[in-house]
Amino acid sequence: MQQCMTELSINTPGRSMIDVSAQIDSWLTESGSGNGLLTIFIRHTSASLTIQENADPDVQADMLDAFDELAPETAPSRHGAEGLDDMPAHIKSALTSTSLTIPVSAGRMTLGTWQGIYLIEHRARPHQRQIVLLFMGDLRQ
Amino acid sequence: MQQCMTELSINTPGRSMIDVSAQIDSWLTESGSGNGLLTIFIRHTSASLTIQENADPDVQADMLDAFDELAPETAPSRHGAEGLDDMPAHIKSALTSTSLTIPVSAGRMTLGTWQGIYLIEHRARPHQRQIVLLFMGDLRQ
Amino acid sequence: MQQCMTELSINTPGRSMIDVSAQIDSWLTESGSGNGLLTIFIRHTSASLTIQENADPDVQADMLDAFDELAPETAPSRHGAEGLDDMPAHIKSALTSTSLTIPVSAGRMTLGTWQGIYLIEHRARPHQRQIVLLFMGDLRQ
Repeated sequence: MQQCMTELSINTPGRSMIDVSAQIDSWLTESGSGNGLLTIFIRHTSASLTIQENADPDVQADMLDAFDELAPETAPSRHGAEGLDDMPAHIKSALTSTSLTIPVSAGRMTLGTWQGIYLIEHRARPHQRQIVLLFMGDLRQ
Repeated sequence: MQQCMTELSINTPGRSMIDVSAQIDSWLTESGSGNGLLTIFIRHTSASLTIQENADPDVQADMLDAFDELAPETAPSRHGAEGLDDMPAHIKSALTSTSLTIPVSAGRMTLGTWQGIYLIEHRARPHQRQIVLLFMGDLRQ
Repeated sequence: MQQCMTELSINTPGRSMIDVSAQIDSWLTESGSGNGLLTIFIRHTSASLTIQENADPDVQADMLDAFDELAPETAPSRHGAEGLDDMPAHIKSALTSTSLTIPVSAGRMTLGTWQGIYLIEHRARPHQRQIVLLFMGDLRQ
């Protein structure tokens, strides 16, 4: 068994869900991955990861609205120095994922037909976000 | 180190939590796993995974009700073509887990006494769901 | 590739977020880990794990309040024999994480500058909690 690691840098436009599946897929191919495990890790606490439907963009818009309902900017909070959108961003990150693990078969993630991998930017303004990718397993023959 | 992968197919009766621990445990035993890491990955965006209490079935009923409160069918949404229960199912999936990772010691998951692994069906109607299992580590001597 | 596993026992004071990053970091160093994957697994269903901001303690206080809003003790529930705080604790656990996976580079977790690893005690009273740590990868030369 072998392993390869890299870091992706993603520029976000502010509050949005960004499909990063194609970039991850390309890296898996370039790194020669065969069978194994892919770990995706985001190095932030006000942006997060999720695997969600990639067919209808309305799903992403509805989901961002649902997160706003679950962690509204109007909720009382102590931590406010970084802006009204900051504490809700931390809560939304805690409710979704900082790391994802996906089995890889013959160099392809075993995603279902409608599954895409999304970086969720929870802050209102654009940010540059870092994602670590780690593949562990066999390389292709 | 070695690895084994398989896919389980689970028929759900609609909205429910289904304990899949025994099936996963059987596969670990059959595959000869020793020490290592088990990854469980669900290939869907309207059903998800969680590790929860397996002693009192009331916990599962209360949890399904709590998910309904957090992502109600009455919330306004754009994505509606697949039924009123569809967008809430996506939100509930994002709030729980698409993948779980569990250390394995001497062929047994290191679950606590009261922990069971559940597939959560968030859609109202029955579905067939696919779960990928990946064990990486040492095989039993 | 090699692996090392251990179990940490953490005493909690009741409802709180406890930074366990330093203990995990020490174990990684002692175990001689190089490049690889760290899995952190909590063996409970009323306490959980999250990666969150470690700079301003107000973030943790606000987050605990947000969890109380999402899973209030006043919500009707069937499962009540273990106290009013028990069912909300299960719901909060399901909404956060039972397992975390973090890439490790040259023996250090690839955490971002502001990321800390927290055990979240969701029960009101003190508990002793068990966390399993598994490192898989290369050892330092």
